[in-house]
Amino acid sequence: MSQLRNVKILGTGKFLPKKKVTSYELDHLLGLNNGWVEQKSGVSLRSFVENETASEMAALASIDAINASNLHKEDIDCIVSVSGTMEQPIPCNASLVQKQLGLNNSKIPCFDINSTCLSFVTGFDTISYLVHSGRYKNVLLVSSEIASVGLNWKNKENAILFGDGAAAAVISKTPDTENSKILAGHMETFSDGAHFTEIRGGGTKLHPNHPTANETDFLFDMNGKSVFKLSSKNIVSYMEKLLSLSNCTINDIDLVVPHQASGMAMRILRNKLGIDEAKFMNIIHNHGNTIASSIPMALHEAIVQNKIQRGNKVMLIGTSAGLSIGGVVFEY
Amino acid sequence: MSQLRNVKILGTGKFLPKKKVTSYELDHLLGLNNGWVEQKSGVSLRSFVENETASEMAALASIDAINASNLHKEDIDCIVSVSGTMEQPIPCNASLVQKQLGLNNSKIPCFDINSTCLSFVTGFDTISYLVHSGRYKNVLLVSSEIASVGLNWKNKENAILFGDGAAAAVISKTPDTENSKILAGHMETFSDGAHFTEIRGGGTKLHPNHPTANETDFLFDMNGKSVFKLSSKNIVSYMEKLLSLSNCTINDIDLVVPHQASGMAMRILRNKLGIDEAKFMNIIHNHGNTIASSIPMALHEAIVQNKIQRGNKVMLIGTSAGLSIGGVVFEY
Repeated sequence: MSQLRNVKILGTGKFLPKKKVTSYELDHLLGLNNGWVEQKSGVSLRSFVENETASEMAALASIDAINASNLHKEDIDCIVSVSGTMEQPIPCNASLVQKQLGLNNSKIPCFDINSTCLSFVTGFDTISYLVHSGRYKNVLLVSSEIASVGLNWKNKENAILFGDGAAAAVISKTPDTENSKILAGHMETFSDGAHFTEIRGGGTKLHPNHPTANETDFLFDMNGKSVFKLSSKNIVSYMEKLLSLSNCTINDIDLVVPHQASGMAMRILRNKLGIDEAKFMNIIHNHGNTIASSIPMALHEAIVQNKIQRGNKVMLIGTSAGLSIGGVVFEY
Repeated sequence: MSQLRNVKILGTGKFLPKKKVTSYELDHLLGLNNGWVEQKSGVSLRSFVENETASEMAALASIDAINASNLHKEDIDCIVSVSGTMEQPIPCNASLVQKQLGLNNSKIPCFDINSTCLSFVTGFDTISYLVHSGRYKNVLLVSSEIASVGLNWKNKENAILFGDGAAAAVISKTPDTENSKILAGHMETFSDGAHFTEIRGGGTKLHPNHPTANETDFLFDMNGKSVFKLSSKNIVSYMEKLLSLSNCTINDIDLVVPHQASGMAMRILRNKLGIDEAKFMNIIHNHGNTIASSIPMALHEAIVQNKIQRGNKVMLIGTSAGLSIGGVVFEY
């Protein structure tokens, strides 16, 4: 059955916090040889928040996306937060974004979709059905992530990968005279890997007030080797499925916009799938892994840098905690 | 534009933890006169977890819903967690549910939709578009909530309202020979009330490891009067909109299934909207407010107690942190 949806990305936006942290600074802080952090992570520069909140960053990226869409913020009729982290456990992120945007009297519906690093992809894929059907006219999808507060610097191989930041996109129904469309979306979850990537504490299982919970429980933990093994085992058949649903071959894709997981993970993905370097969007060196913001931020950079034009076929693809593999193929 | 979606609730399920707590026990624990808790809350009995986790409860409610649907768990092709709380910050709840269901080799896509107490309504409303279009055949929507770990007993008016538990539903495309359908869904978010109902600490703004974060920051806080004022001001026009989108009057609705927020909130809602007591599902007395599980649990009870039949028109409606008002009208 065809999955075609006549949905267009009107505009995208991004925001990075002011404070920049070089990999040389991290080498020094962690007592490592100059160059170790950059070589291990593929990241030379990342941004970390000082006082910025996730909803403030989300609002700034959103305004950027709304401007790029030639819309006013009042034209938005649904706000979906597509982040892997939350600003606070209650209420949902999207309500806080509505407030930051000064849309508190707008009645615009607000809710969150979360599949960790794939949240933007899942949100785009899911909400496109509502846009295609006419339920909403202009949906704001916004990812805003503060990784830096949850990193475990004793686990340096993981901690050095991440950066903070926000990215947003406005999606709308494609006008009859244009061709923008989603060709297909597909997601596979392998919960054998549910505990390979996690923050164990802070939810209802190990509540912050639980007597045995300690600082480390609230920090990000990843078994990189297990993630690599499980995703490698499944990525090729996943890709065949996504391309087949899209009625495309990999050669039809003008640009692949992968999750900016780590320099190494991206290199392996690219080689495994046989994608030319020129057709593989890479912004990790000056952004780091910004969790769910990573894919829309790379997409935004691709648009701003003229790496994609209307009519081009674009693939968003990545892995996330869960462990999930997800992607969308669309004609921009 | 019509919002009709040919979607059918195949079956529902529920799970409550073993431990029951009476309002008399709470009167005693809180040093209050016998009867105070029940009179204030409308709750005489609620369930609290001992060692049950949210994903375990979710799996048990899900199996109940899958059995009621005459399906096997392998027939499910998408799992959406629709809870207001999370078991752990990473990964998303739905992956943990997939694992608990023993579906770890199934590749079934898993993600979360969160609009606090309205998560089930938002999930049902949103995912129905994907089911209608054929993207997924049998979607499992599951809410599983552990309120008890996050209650502030010094704030007794709020704490006495809640209970733990899980509820699930399987939704599918309506066969051509049947009439089940969603008539309309509608949500309005008023972020003037974003901080009326919250848990401030535990996310990226006030991380569990933040030096100033204290136990109370991680507990539920609600300004009941402000919530009441803002929702009262908007509920009547909201309801007119939902009914108009559904092409119904309130008299066409056979059963209203409201969020079981509190005895008083439900009484006021019912009076304000002029709904007969017999057409207003009420399970709060022996469940309490089970956050997002509350609406699907009340719907499940309505089905089990034969209060709705195929062909009946049902309205799900409630308010949530955000502050949001949301609802769906469907023909069962």
